[in-house]
Amino acid sequence: MVDDAPRVGIIMGSRSDWETMAHADNLLREFGVAHECRIVSAHRTPARMNEYAGSARGRGLRAIIAGAGGAAHLPGMVAAQTTVPVLGVPVQSRALKGLDSLLSIAQMPGGVPVATFAIGESGARNAALFAVAMLASDDADLADRLDAYREAQARRVIEDELP
Amino acid sequence: MVDDAPRVGIIMGSRSDWETMAHADNLLREFGVAHECRIVSAHRTPARMNEYAGSARGRGLRAIIAGAGGAAHLPGMVAAQTTVPVLGVPVQSRALKGLDSLLSIAQMPGGVPVATFAIGESGARNAALFAVAMLASDDADLADRLDAYREAQARRVIEDELP
Amino acid sequence: MVDDAPRVGIIMGSRSDWETMAHADNLLREFGVAHECRIVSAHRTPARMNEYAGSARGRGLRAIIAGAGGAAHLPGMVAAQTTVPVLGVPVQSRALKGLDSLLSIAQMPGGVPVATFAIGESGARNAALFAVAMLASDDADLADRLDAYREAQARRVIEDELP
Amino acid sequence: MVDDAPRVGIIMGSRSDWETMAHADNLLREFGVAHECRIVSAHRTPARMNEYAGSARGRGLRAIIAGAGGAAHLPGMVAAQTTVPVLGVPVQSRALKGLDSLLSIAQMPGGVPVATFAIGESGARNAALFAVAMLASDDADLADRLDAYREAQARRVIEDELP
Amino acid sequence: MVDDAPRVGIIMGSRSDWETMAHADNLLREFGVAHECRIVSAHRTPARMNEYAGSARGRGLRAIIAGAGGAAHLPGMVAAQTTVPVLGVPVQSRALKGLDSLLSIAQMPGGVPVATFAIGESGARNAALFAVAMLASDDADLADRLDAYREAQARRVIEDELP
Amino acid sequence: MVDDAPRVGIIMGSRSDWETMAHADNLLREFGVAHECRIVSAHRTPARMNEYAGSARGRGLRAIIAGAGGAAHLPGMVAAQTTVPVLGVPVQSRALKGLDSLLSIAQMPGGVPVATFAIGESGARNAALFAVAMLASDDADLADRLDAYREAQARRVIEDELP
Amino acid sequence: MVDDAPRVGIIMGSRSDWETMAHADNLLREFGVAHECRIVSAHRTPARMNEYAGSARGRGLRAIIAGAGGAAHLPGMVAAQTTVPVLGVPVQSRALKGLDSLLSIAQMPGGVPVATFAIGESGARNAALFAVAMLASDDADLADRLDAYREAQARRVIEDELP
Amino acid sequence: MVDDAPRVGIIMGSRSDWETMAHADNLLREFGVAHECRIVSAHRTPARMNEYAGSARGRGLRAIIAGAGGAAHLPGMVAAQTTVPVLGVPVQSRALKGLDSLLSIAQMPGGVPVATFAIGESGARNAALFAVAMLASDDADLADRLDAYREAQARRVIEDELP
Repeated sequence: MVDDAPRVGIIMGSRSDWETMAHADNLLREFGVAHECRIVSAHRTPARMNEYAGSARGRGLRAIIAGAGGAAHLPGMVAAQTTVPVLGVPVQSRALKGLDSLLSIAQMPGGVPVATFAIGESGARNAALFAVAMLASDDADLADRLDAYREAQARRVIEDELP
Repeated sequence: MVDDAPRVGIIMGSRSDWETMAHADNLLREFGVAHECRIVSAHRTPARMNEYAGSARGRGLRAIIAGAGGAAHLPGMVAAQTTVPVLGVPVQSRALKGLDSLLSIAQMPGGVPVATFAIGESGARNAALFAVAMLASDDADLADRLDAYREAQARRVIEDELP
Repeated sequence: MVDDAPRVGIIMGSRSDWETMAHADNLLREFGVAHECRIVSAHRTPARMNEYAGSARGRGLRAIIAGAGGAAHLPGMVAAQTTVPVLGVPVQSRALKGLDSLLSIAQMPGGVPVATFAIGESGARNAALFAVAMLASDDADLADRLDAYREAQARRVIEDELP
Repeated sequence: MVDDAPRVGIIMGSRSDWETMAHADNLLREFGVAHECRIVSAHRTPARMNEYAGSARGRGLRAIIAGAGGAAHLPGMVAAQTTVPVLGVPVQSRALKGLDSLLSIAQMPGGVPVATFAIGESGARNAALFAVAMLASDDADLADRLDAYREAQARRVIEDELP
Repeated sequence: MVDDAPRVGIIMGSRSDWETMAHADNLLREFGVAHECRIVSAHRTPARMNEYAGSARGRGLRAIIAGAGGAAHLPGMVAAQTTVPVLGVPVQSRALKGLDSLLSIAQMPGGVPVATFAIGESGARNAALFAVAMLASDDADLADRLDAYREAQARRVIEDELP
Repeated sequence: MVDDAPRVGIIMGSRSDWETMAHADNLLREFGVAHECRIVSAHRTPARMNEYAGSARGRGLRAIIAGAGGAAHLPGMVAAQTTVPVLGVPVQSRALKGLDSLLSIAQMPGGVPVATFAIGESGARNAALFAVAMLASDDADLADRLDAYREAQARRVIEDELP
Repeated sequence: MVDDAPRVGIIMGSRSDWETMAHADNLLREFGVAHECRIVSAHRTPARMNEYAGSARGRGLRAIIAGAGGAAHLPGMVAAQTTVPVLGVPVQSRALKGLDSLLSIAQMPGGVPVATFAIGESGARNAALFAVAMLASDDADLADRLDAYREAQARRVIEDELP
Repeated sequence: MVDDAPRVGIIMGSRSDWETMAHADNLLREFGVAHECRIVSAHRTPARMNEYAGSARGRGLRAIIAGAGGAAHLPGMVAAQTTVPVLGVPVQSRALKGLDSLLSIAQMPGGVPVATFAIGESGARNAALFAVAMLASDDADLADRLDAYREAQARRVIEDELP
């Protein structure tokens, strides 16, 4: 199913972000959501980014998950150039531990929204889950799988035991 | 059009959050998106919150915009009890200026996503715009209006003049 | 004595919090205070949490020690659903080192109190000590043991030697 | 009823903290809990503080609510000298808005607990509510009033209306 | 002299940034450096920004002073699309007082430099002074005026008197 | 010379602070300043602390160097009980890396001064150097050695070579 | 007595710091300590600063109180050029409220100490009190007045009354 | 080519900063820009620093890249004594991870500009790239190489592949 036309794009500023963004990829695979993963740097390949954003709607993307660290401009700049919903993942940075990434993504001015998630792996996973929830609005099968995922998640907590 | 069955719910922890959340209400009105506004406190009315979250999908809500300040638990706790996408708005708090609100909303653990927006008015407006973008995926008319909104916004910048 | 009906509940959002919360468990064991330890996730098992909070008073709990990290909603949401005193322990988070946990627990709005302790192990131990102090108000034996604990603690400082 | 032997002590580092701490005083009055209010400065009147802490248990205090700002040492230093539970209220400071107060109170080392509440008025009110909850453990009448307080609080939210 | 082909461009994300950026404009006027002022929003007018950046070198700009607040992407995104030196001015934001602006501008990844200055007016003035210093490298007259400016500045300190 | 009546006292809240405070001890040894090192905990041994502060002037101490971490109350509480100058060293804490220690020591209210130095080793060394500078005011030999220390320090920089 | 050769120098980076530093001036006047007040800017008048620092010991200064805000380099740079003890006062800055000032002054590297005090007025007053305490080491009369000051300060707390 | 009269100076507060600043050195070597590297400490060798700054223009330096950590005064103090553009690199500090370095360098008062770059390696590399861009204004060959560098950088992103 992952070979179908992608419904979600996962992009990231550099290859070093993959360690984080792979968690989004894994989750979409788990749900069988067709998607694509690309390195698209706002700063080093702005033309590529502009083109990616500009073609997203036409290519049928329903959401773009964008991860970046430090002065993380990728999510906001993609959002500036498409009305496809953009989900931003602040990658943990070396010095400031992702506080800079979080503020650079979350504090967007009114008019151009970016949905921001937690710093690091949790954020990558949750951005993917959020994309699934968005797609589930007109995909009853996916909605069922999301419900099942939530239930399994709760069950694992309940069955977990302390030492 | 606002009298139709609501497609978006706007909730907030207390009436004092209205000054911020009214910006989400205004934007949805501007786009003619049927929605509802409620005070639902995670801490003071947990039962009401649980019920709100539990009934959201059945009532046809496609997104819930939840604003809260300080130890802002409303967005995350609603998200824990529904798979309807939750958009969190950190309301600016008195002492820490919304940094506490932002972290309380954005730093969700993996498994339960909340899409977080900027602190304050910009965040409220952007959460509403994001909801519009979500609804636009299967509402061509709304998609057109969103494009027009973006264009008008750009035009206002271009026509603006410095003193 | 730990087999008696528990007087204190120790709960935590996930098993990974145990490394921190075990310090609360150890301290209550040391004082022979009957207690229970449970994984109760606000986000992944909200129903379980609601039930835990709702039954706490009836089951005779005199205090609930709740540990959580990141967007730490567990202490506040339990406190919203019981008048049993809730003691919150901010677990050290990966990126922001517990600053998010601390603010998410401490910055509760007026009306629903959570007693917050330090980030990490010190906080877990102190929450347990605080629970002991609360119970000591009508348990003279426990009060004596708390005094002895304090004295031993002071003695260890005094007997400690620098290299 | 406020003329009875005080069960709770409210202390603060300086008169300028009264604006904040009056919210604790008001709440205890509302519940009819006998209490006392004193200015006790850790830094300017350490002897008075030591004496206050040392005599607290003997005078029958069941909780001490201590408010202080900046390098806020009062709650921790009182807690160091009594096993009566100490509830710390970080008063909002001028430059750092109470972040310094919060960290100075919450980050106590293991062995000497201080229950910390939110910065400012909410914290003062919640510390008092927490004291009420502690006292309610052996005062059924107070427990009933606390339940009623919670219910009224929820009702006010439910009856509140947005513009 | 300000009517000559501009050697410096001053751009800003919105008209509300003018209050800050006017300090850069004033300083360049004071030095008689030909320059232009434009509203160019990275988020609301990305195409205009791309075009501005793309044409900067050809139009003879020697420096671009870019002011923005919050998730401040303008300086970095312009720098990504030109090798004309970009000087970033973090505009003071409402909630986080410019800390978000500062981190969004300063924490650029290796490969695309932005010279960052202080939050607010001082930063705007200093970015302009820095541009003057750059231009002075091959403009002896400007270099002399910069020396004179520095001397006058020192003299004002020396002649200033305390009450 | 270190066996003479101590002129400087080095105290710290716990033995784990020794790794930091040993840098103060080493420096005073290097200068041959008679001093003593003690573990004195504000929270665990308040009586010992009160006695230490109370006897400091009478025992001839000219400065007290006090190191502590987290909610670091030792320097301020000693300063509250003596007019011997107190030099505070914020020990790096586990979660917040000493930001809590720094604020707890530096943000003293007007009326009771604590001279604060940098977080960690640099702060310990500098507090000792500051004590040397204080003593040097009436000890010409020590003043000469301090000058020589500064000169040697500069020489080491000048002789140092980059790879 | 203030007309004698100054024993303490109060310097500040700009006239706008006077509002803060006047609290140091007032306190030294209250104690009758001969002192001088000067505007000395590290950045705008470095030569003047170097000369001030270089001549301080020879002119008999026993302490230099240096106030500065933002990137506050004055205290550290004076300390680099004299062994007269330097007491740094972080002036509250507009955007970051003095957090930048505090870190710029306190976080000195090992080898060149600056004694740092609280942000703003409290810090200015305490730096002056600390200078008095230093001078009191060989001035019995001043020592007595410092004791009296402390006692009066305590008495004012004790006599103060809550509403 | 590096043996020519240096056009850029790289200075740093201590040898331990070399690990960071070597990234600036490497980049200038890569571009064949004649430059020099020196240890110049603002605090430990102020005279050397003053001399370095004072002679910079006469020696033909077109830019000075200054790296420092903690209370990082080197860039600002050099900038105070020369009109040669100063590019500041905040070195990552041990406790506060470079936040102190960043604020100490970026928050300069109006009148004395320092161009600030990111904390750590990225900042060192970008400061060097910025110097190259400055020099490229009158060095067509260097401008071409800078364009080529940017293109190669973009190509590496485009050719990079995710696992």
